Amino acid sequence: MSAALAELPPMGVAGRTARLRARFEPEHVDALLVTRLPNVRYLTGFTGSAGILLVGPDDMVFVTDGRYAEQATDQLGAADVPARIEVRASQSGQRDVMRDAAAAYLRLGLEAHGVTWAQQRAFAAEWFVGAELVATEHLVEDLRRVKEPAEVARIQAACAIADEALGVVAPRLAQGPTERDVALWLELEMRDRGATGTSFDTIVASGPNGAKPHARPSGRAIEAGEPVVIDFGCVVDGYCSDMTRTLSFGDPGPDARRMFDVVRNAQQSGREAVKARADCAQVDKACRDVIEAAGWGDAFVHGTGHGVGLEIHEAPRVAATARDTLASGYVVTVEPGVYLPGTGGVRIEDTVVVTDDGAEVLTRFPKDFLL
Amino acid sequence: MSAALAELPPMGVAGRTARLRARFEPEHVDALLVTRLPNVRYLTGFTGSAGILLVGPDDMVFVTDGRYAEQATDQLGAADVPARIEVRASQSGQRDVMRDAAAAYLRLGLEAHGVTWAQQRAFAAEWFVGAELVATEHLVEDLRRVKEPAEVARIQAACAIADEALGVVAPRLAQGPTERDVALWLELEMRDRGATGTSFDTIVASGPNGAKPHARPSGRAIEAGEPVVIDFGCVVDGYCSDMTRTLSFGDPGPDARRMFDVVRNAQQSGREAVKARADCAQVDKACRDVIEAAGWGDAFVHGTGHGVGLEIHEAPRVAATARDTLASGYVVTVEPGVYLPGTGGVRIEDTVVVTDDGAEVLTRFPKDFLL
Repeated sequence: MSAALAELPPMGVAGRTARLRARFEPEHVDALLVTRLPNVRYLTGFTGSAGILLVGPDDMVFVTDGRYAEQATDQLGAADVPARIEVRASQSGQRDVMRDAAAAYLRLGLEAHGVTWAQQRAFAAEWFVGAELVATEHLVEDLRRVKEPAEVARIQAACAIADEALGVVAPRLAQGPTERDVALWLELEMRDRGATGTSFDTIVASGPNGAKPHARPSGRAIEAGEPVVIDFGCVVDGYCSDMTRTLSFGDPGPDARRMFDVVRNAQQSGREAVKARADCAQVDKACRDVIEAAGWGDAFVHGTGHGVGLEIHEAPRVAATARDTLASGYVVTVEPGVYLPGTGGVRIEDTVVVTDDGAEVLTRFPKDFLL
Repeated sequence: MSAALAELPPMGVAGRTARLRARFEPEHVDALLVTRLPNVRYLTGFTGSAGILLVGPDDMVFVTDGRYAEQATDQLGAADVPARIEVRASQSGQRDVMRDAAAAYLRLGLEAHGVTWAQQRAFAAEWFVGAELVATEHLVEDLRRVKEPAEVARIQAACAIADEALGVVAPRLAQGPTERDVALWLELEMRDRGATGTSFDTIVASGPNGAKPHARPSGRAIEAGEPVVIDFGCVVDGYCSDMTRTLSFGDPGPDARRMFDVVRNAQQSGREAVKARADCAQVDKACRDVIEAAGWGDAFVHGTGHGVGLEIHEAPRVAATARDTLASGYVVTVEPGVYLPGTGGVRIEDTVVVTDDGAEVLTRFPKDFLL
C-alpha cells in the first residue's frame, strides 16, 4: 500500500445534489433522470454497474436490481445520501417505480449523452408518457469539472502510485523485456500499492510501434536504443491518473533526441499556458506552435488533453476546436506528441490541477529521455 | 504463454458483412451506420476506441481519427475488409465524410442501442438531414449470437487460461490472503499465460461479502472455513471467458455445505437444460426450481446467465423473462447463486457452447467446495 493512500479525506457527496438542483430552473426541467453511471456515483457514492437515479426538487429515488441491493444500502448510507432505494429485478418493475416517482413532473430531463436512442424511445412510449422529455447536456458532468479538494487528493494519490510504479519498472527496460512485460509490471506495481485497477488499457509502444498513438502492448522485445512510449494510469477510490513518458535505454541517435526535445518543449509550453481563465484552445496552441515550428505540425495527430476525474476522459477537451475555458480546480492532461509512421513516436503527458495563476503538476516522474 | 494459445485459427471477418446486408431489406434500411465498437470490430477487425462504419449495399466507409490511422489500415487490411478508410480529426470532418457517403440512401439504419440520444439528434439535424433515420435493434448483435468455430476457439482459450490460473491460485487460500490478493494473483496468472486483460472486474467475495453478487475485492483477510465466491475471466484476441467457483479452505459447516450442494445441483440442472432449440426461460427455470425447492427462491436475485463473446454480456439473456431460444453455436453462461445478507453466498458458473443435443462446458475447473 502506498503512503499516498494513508489519509484520503472524506468527500462531500451528499452536498452535490443541491448544486444540481440549482440548474433545474435555467435548464427548464422539473427533475432529472440520471442514467450515466459516473454521474450516479458522483451524486450518491454508488459504484455498481446498474442503477438509475431520479433527482426531483425535494427527493431522490434510486432503482437498482437484486445484485446491488445490499451494496446500494451500504454506499448511499455511508455517503449520507437521502434517496429512497428500490430494488426491482425486471425492466418493467423498474419502469413502474420510476413512472410513479416521476408522475408529478411535467418536464423531465434526460441525459442526452447518457441514454441510448432506444432507451429514450422506451422512456417516451412507456415510462414517462405524460411528461415532456428534455434533452439535457452535461448537467452533472459540468458540476464535476471543478474538483473538490478531496477529489484532487484521490487523483493525486493515483498519480503518486503511477510515479512509484514507473520508478520501479523503468530501469528494467535494460533487460530487453517485451512491451507486454512492461505493461504487466506497471499494473502489478500499481495494484500492489493499492490502486483498484488501471484507468485505461496501458500503452507500451516501442520503436516503430510508437507511431501509433494508441498501440496495444505487443510481444515485441524492446531493444536498446529504441524509444518507448509508456502511457498509463491507475484508479484510486474511483479517481483516475494519466501520465505518458517516452524513455530509451541506450541512445537512439540525434533524430530521435531532437524529436524528444521538441515534444518536451511543446509539453512545457502547454503546461505554462495552463491557468484559471485560460482558453483550452490556447493551451493546445501553445503546444502546437512549438511542434509546427519544428516542421512536424501534421504529425501531432490528436488534441492536447482532456479532463480527468471519475472518468479518464471527461470535460473539458483541450484541443484546437475546444470552446472551453479553464477554471481553478479543473484537472486536465497536457499531452502533445509527434508520430512518424515507420519510424516511431514521442509523447509526454502530465496530469495537472488548474490554479488561479498556473498549474500544479500531479505526475512527477522526471521527463528524461535516456535511462 | 498458455498452450491454449498455440494455434488460434483465422476468423472469417470479411464474410460477415454479407450476412448483415441480407438483413437490410427485411429491416427496411438501405444502409446501416455501425457505431457500437464491438460491432465495428466484428465487421472489420478494428480494435481501436473510436471509429464509425457505414455499410452500404455495395461499399463500406470507415472513419476514425488520427490516433488510429495506421492501426485502421493495418487491421482492416489484415482482415481483408474492403472498406474505404478516411481519417478526420474533427467531428465536423467526420460528419462531412459520412454525409457524402450516405447521400444516396433514403432510409439509413442507426443502431438504437449504439447511439446516444444526443448523437441521434445530431445525426438528424446535421449529419443526415435528407434521410429517414431508422431505429434498428441488434442487427449485428444478432449475427454475433452464433459463434464461428474460430470464435469458439478464442473463448475456449480464454476459459482454459482462467482454469489454469485458478489451479495455481486456489491452493493459496490456505495462506489467508486478502480478497484483493486473490484477485491480483488471478489476473497476473492469466496475463502471464497470454490473456490481454480481464473480461470484467474480478470478484473475490469471502464470508459475509459473498452475499453481494457483485462485490469488489476488499482488503479483508480470508479466514479458514469461510466460503469465497470467485467470479472472473480473461480476454484472448478480444473474446471473453466467464467462470465462478465458490471455494472454502477448511470446512465452513453443514449450513454452508448444504447451500453449496443446492447451488451445485441447480447449476447442473441448468447445464443439462441447455441445448439447441431450448428456451432460455426453461434453462433459468431448471436452475430456479432446484433453489426454490430448497426454500431459497427469494435469495437467487439475478438471472441464470448471458451470452459471452466479444462482450462479456451479450445476447441472449438466460432469465425467467427472456424470450430467446438457444441455437447451436451460441455461447452462454449458467450461473445460479444464493445470497443470504449477513451470512454469505454461493455462486457456480460455467461458460458453455450450445450444441444440437446439449452443452459443451468450456470452463473445466472442478466444482468442489472444500480445498
